[in-house]
Amino acid sequence: MEQQTETKAEQKSARTGIIDCDVHPYPRNTEEIRSYMKQPWRDRYNGGGRGFFGNPVQGDRVDARPPQGGPSGSDPELLRKQLIDEYGHAYAILMPRAFCNLHPDPDFGTAIAAAFNDWLADTWLDKYNADGVFKGSITVNTQDPQAAAREIERWAGHPHFVQVMTDSGARAPFGQRQYYPIYEACEKFGLPFAIHPGTDGMGINVQPSPGFPTHYIEWHTCLSLGFQSHLVSFITEGVFERFPGFKIALVEGGVSWLAPLMWRLDAEYKALRSEVPWLKRKPSEYLRDHVRITSQPLERPDNDNHLLQIFDMMDAEHILMFSSDYPHWDFDSPTRAFPKLPESLRRRIFYENALEFYKL
Amino acid sequence: MEQQTETKAEQKSARTGIIDCDVHPYPRNTEEIRSYMKQPWRDRYNGGGRGFFGNPVQGDRVDARPPQGGPSGSDPELLRKQLIDEYGHAYAILMPRAFCNLHPDPDFGTAIAAAFNDWLADTWLDKYNADGVFKGSITVNTQDPQAAAREIERWAGHPHFVQVMTDSGARAPFGQRQYYPIYEACEKFGLPFAIHPGTDGMGINVQPSPGFPTHYIEWHTCLSLGFQSHLVSFITEGVFERFPGFKIALVEGGVSWLAPLMWRLDAEYKALRSEVPWLKRKPSEYLRDHVRITSQPLERPDNDNHLLQIFDMMDAEHILMFSSDYPHWDFDSPTRAFPKLPESLRRRIFYENALEFYKL
Repeated sequence: MEQQTETKAEQKSARTGIIDCDVHPYPRNTEEIRSYMKQPWRDRYNGGGRGFFGNPVQGDRVDARPPQGGPSGSDPELLRKQLIDEYGHAYAILMPRAFCNLHPDPDFGTAIAAAFNDWLADTWLDKYNADGVFKGSITVNTQDPQAAAREIERWAGHPHFVQVMTDSGARAPFGQRQYYPIYEACEKFGLPFAIHPGTDGMGINVQPSPGFPTHYIEWHTCLSLGFQSHLVSFITEGVFERFPGFKIALVEGGVSWLAPLMWRLDAEYKALRSEVPWLKRKPSEYLRDHVRITSQPLERPDNDNHLLQIFDMMDAEHILMFSSDYPHWDFDSPTRAFPKLPESLRRRIFYENALEFYKL
Repeated sequence: MEQQTETKAEQKSARTGIIDCDVHPYPRNTEEIRSYMKQPWRDRYNGGGRGFFGNPVQGDRVDARPPQGGPSGSDPELLRKQLIDEYGHAYAILMPRAFCNLHPDPDFGTAIAAAFNDWLADTWLDKYNADGVFKGSITVNTQDPQAAAREIERWAGHPHFVQVMTDSGARAPFGQRQYYPIYEACEKFGLPFAIHPGTDGMGINVQPSPGFPTHYIEWHTCLSLGFQSHLVSFITEGVFERFPGFKIALVEGGVSWLAPLMWRLDAEYKALRSEVPWLKRKPSEYLRDHVRITSQPLERPDNDNHLLQIFDMMDAEHILMFSSDYPHWDFDSPTRAFPKLPESLRRRIFYENALEFYKL
């Protein structure tokens, strides 16, 4: 908080530490979100009813629970101490957990999204952000793309919202046409679209596996598969040709699958390109201009060289952005999650890729 | 066919060429299958009604269509000429395409499976197989596991059936308990269980992606994701602890995703092992004893070294088995699908791994 008295320009040039692309702020309690809702949503919202798995490790870092009460990630001072100050973060990209896209009623989902955006703007982004370290995500309800586009427009001028976000749960892959009002708004306002795990197989959303998995470990391991389907859909549907300025961030969906999936898709494209005549390039060639992927939970093979080889295959130098997932149970420490990297690559992953992607 | 006069023992020792783990024999026409059915199935079966995509490249090698008519893969003489003789195959593992596990009526599915098994035994395995090059797969309907177990028992003594097979489409991941009668029978009779793409999202089966994909290229690319879910399910449910002699073959589901998926699952296991206390080893450690993966369609990155690195990461020396997928459109030629391999590795992939797995 030492930088509170600096000017904004000074702050901008001064912030050269880590950029952490997945940090979770939580409301202190459900009432905090309800206070931003009109009726009938205020009475209906209870903050819950979204999950069907019990996470056996409770879902958060126990040491991140505020001593005065409230959930982990609900105390900006504690978060600054444990994350921003501890590791010298330049920016933390905040990803609230609204779980709004699983309700049968799209108006309810949209009301939840709006309330979370109001809350995030009023609290974290305005009240606890004198040094500008916190950058926010505009939560949208993908079930009602036109309403989502209006919500993006409502926040587009805000100095600290840097992207739009959704949970990965869906009833249709994200490359399909019903979603295009969202992407049009993202492109218009220069905001990337981030996908974060959540709501898969919950509420009205389908389970992206051959039927429902049994345990949390199975569900959580396979969350990365839904991301792969969404990415293939974005590319093959031609979203990046239709919206040339549109960019996506795949957050917390795994890392090492990227190159193998693109090889497979490129091979299919050789024979099947007649189905997708709108593509002007090989599928994998859309990544550099349009797709970034965040690091946590980073796979760690026993042999560090295997991960470095994977980084080479996937062009991590331009595609990968560091994230910690604070305050969740599977937090990746900036100092311990990665094997030793060449300094130039480390700087791309921990800072420059996100700096450019979010135009910070 | 020169070896027709040799004794069986001589044939066995003489067959040292390629073992091809995914070759598709087709009936000449629907009547050939119907003739093995009792009523009411004989009247109901029309061979179709399974797909919802049109494959824009028709699904088969045009040059594999018999000049006298009938579909590609329906003429044993042409298949021998184009595959067995052309590449010096020692064995071809035949995978019929029954598409039986998508019908609402489990008895219908079971009748289709049985008719395909009778047909395969009577024709390819008995009538055109004097040299023993053709090894068959027992098709089972996973919808009725008890009936499937009886079907396995019916064929277990046959000299040329070497495995049990199913399509990848399902209403529940294959590690779940309802399937165990199948795995118990496989273990009892020493037959591996092979999963081949097909019936995903068709009939009663769910689509293993976040909703239905739009194009064939998207559906076909993402078929590998359903395999990944099934594999995670087999491991986390403890199937390999419950049935220590049970083995699976993942056929035509992709290759390069294996190591990244296991890294992810191993990492989850570190924190979440309390959910799956029946596991005695790290998830990835079950692969060597229980899982094999076939090569086609082999991913081919621009840089051959990347594929060789992937082979190292996934222990291809012990896990990978060659397959061509003859006579399908995306056939992998034994001489062109792979980059240059060290001879010892080539021999493991093209011959020894399958020889040991199928006890040939």
